[in-house]
Amino acid sequence: MAKKIAGNKKKFSELRQDLVSGEWVVIATSRARRPHALKYGREKFNQPKNTCPFEDPQKSGHTEPILILNQKSGKDWFLQVIPNKFPAFIPGPCPEIRHLGLYQEQDGIGFHDLIVTRYHDKQIAQFSQEEVEKVLWAYQTRYLAIKDDDCVKYISIFHNHGREAGASISHPHSQFIALPVIPPDVSQSLDGSKKYYNKFKRCVHCDMLKQELDFGGRLVYQNNFAVAYCPYASRIAYEIRVYPKVHMPRFEDLSNLQRRYLAEVFRVALYKIYKGLKDPAYNFFIHTAPPKESKEYNHYHWHLEIIPKTAIWAGFEIGTGIDISTVSPTPAAEFLRKVK
Amino acid sequence: MAKKIAGNKKKFSELRQDLVSGEWVVIATSRARRPHALKYGREKFNQPKNTCPFEDPQKSGHTEPILILNQKSGKDWFLQVIPNKFPAFIPGPCPEIRHLGLYQEQDGIGFHDLIVTRYHDKQIAQFSQEEVEKVLWAYQTRYLAIKDDDCVKYISIFHNHGREAGASISHPHSQFIALPVIPPDVSQSLDGSKKYYNKFKRCVHCDMLKQELDFGGRLVYQNNFAVAYCPYASRIAYEIRVYPKVHMPRFEDLSNLQRRYLAEVFRVALYKIYKGLKDPAYNFFIHTAPPKESKEYNHYHWHLEIIPKTAIWAGFEIGTGIDISTVSPTPAAEFLRKVK
Repeated sequence: MAKKIAGNKKKFSELRQDLVSGEWVVIATSRARRPHALKYGREKFNQPKNTCPFEDPQKSGHTEPILILNQKSGKDWFLQVIPNKFPAFIPGPCPEIRHLGLYQEQDGIGFHDLIVTRYHDKQIAQFSQEEVEKVLWAYQTRYLAIKDDDCVKYISIFHNHGREAGASISHPHSQFIALPVIPPDVSQSLDGSKKYYNKFKRCVHCDMLKQELDFGGRLVYQNNFAVAYCPYASRIAYEIRVYPKVHMPRFEDLSNLQRRYLAEVFRVALYKIYKGLKDPAYNFFIHTAPPKESKEYNHYHWHLEIIPKTAIWAGFEIGTGIDISTVSPTPAAEFLRKVK
Repeated sequence: MAKKIAGNKKKFSELRQDLVSGEWVVIATSRARRPHALKYGREKFNQPKNTCPFEDPQKSGHTEPILILNQKSGKDWFLQVIPNKFPAFIPGPCPEIRHLGLYQEQDGIGFHDLIVTRYHDKQIAQFSQEEVEKVLWAYQTRYLAIKDDDCVKYISIFHNHGREAGASISHPHSQFIALPVIPPDVSQSLDGSKKYYNKFKRCVHCDMLKQELDFGGRLVYQNNFAVAYCPYASRIAYEIRVYPKVHMPRFEDLSNLQRRYLAEVFRVALYKIYKGLKDPAYNFFIHTAPPKESKEYNHYHWHLEIIPKTAIWAGFEIGTGIDISTVSPTPAAEFLRKVK
């Protein structure tokens, strides 16, 4: 009995469901071997170019790129997508749920890729609009290639900039994780969106955007297609969300022209955080309708969330789920609008 | 219309509900004035004793203590409870929900106290069992004094140790926040507990503890009354939960003897993290049944959660709600059991 409850130690990584909250976590013991994994002490985040694993990924043990963009010769490329050498999820047969006494678990099956750009010291906030467009193109292209995989229920695309935001390698790179479950925070967002749709037959995000565009006080930047604003219920000071203004459930449906417009707004939003807040650490990620059962999620409205590390989530936030932001979104947006 | 949507800027602080997820956040602009509030850059956490605001709280502008323990003369005391000078919640008439277009908000009414102990450089992990008992006594005594306040729906007691865990003042202190809402993470925990109770007529935590005690592999320390173990679905490496072994919905019902037993297990758990992980930053907090409608929550089982900052929650965790832990709880507990 003891062995069954303990779980199979040989599994690569596992998703485990909290019995009470219903949330899933990943147990991925192999990730502890990452070369730059955070130690218990406090370290500086200053990695030299000559030992950077992303300067020439294939020389540092990465496989050939899945995607490569603007390659003129060997090391002369703008972007490559490569499998993470220390993945939290790996491809395999679709996982089955195992019961261990009261608990449930399944294998960590999926994909975990990196989107690496050329510049060692230049973060996305400093990219040209055209370069940001290429990054978004790579996200979308990889998304389209993976989304119909049998085991994939959700794909999370995110970016960590700076040690405090959880980056373990300073060379700018985004991450792409395809999961065998719909994550709890996405479920919650989908449920809220669905509930509103069932009640009013309208998209809650569209209604919210209308109100924000009418009010104007929380807007940061916009063009014909996209808008960046500080949300009414910001979780952290200077949080920004970037939305397509038209109803659009899925990120992967962006047209070339829409991607160009989006790149403009997204670049400006990131640049304003970089310049205005003096190069803080930040995370950004995409929330989008899950790729499967596509009609079911037509009520959703995909968007980007940018979370500058202007505070640390501490005991209160972790224990309650209530985040305390020290700056109201209206003055935050006013401040960011003035950053040139 | 614009003004109504923008909200009343003169309110001290606000709880705001995310329209989609239903979660509440606090907008407390006055907290940005805290003397040691985290800046956007990276700073060291090294505060001298002679300018510490907690060495003699009344000299640094704090009011007289609400509670004081073992005071022999003016500055010679072991513990005091004082109102936070930079609170996120303040006392006042029970808040009403205001509608701002699609949004809802209410005032941040409640209590925000600090529990300050004597030693400038000695963290709770280094306290004697008797000293830990006094800290728990102060939590409980303050809890009992506040819990029947009309506006209070939940009380969160938590502690941040170290800059990375969000402490802004290095002198050890715990915090006590009484809220006019039941926080989303607590609701989720209560709902899970209720659902299980309705189905099996048993406490889910009791069943989980039975399984853990039978298995033994994730246990860290125990005595007759309490047990510390690494949860099956740990959110972070070396996470520990401390539970009373008997079914007990409410923290505030601890007897003197139970508090003594609890102090032993809690002190040992904190010490093992301190010693074994080489003085990491950590948070701990209490999850307990809300004080109101007390019979409704008899299915709950209060406990302490200790979260060492062994990783940074980054874009993936923030964007999905799925935490990636790099150490499985069974070897984590095995490691911690061996720490003497």
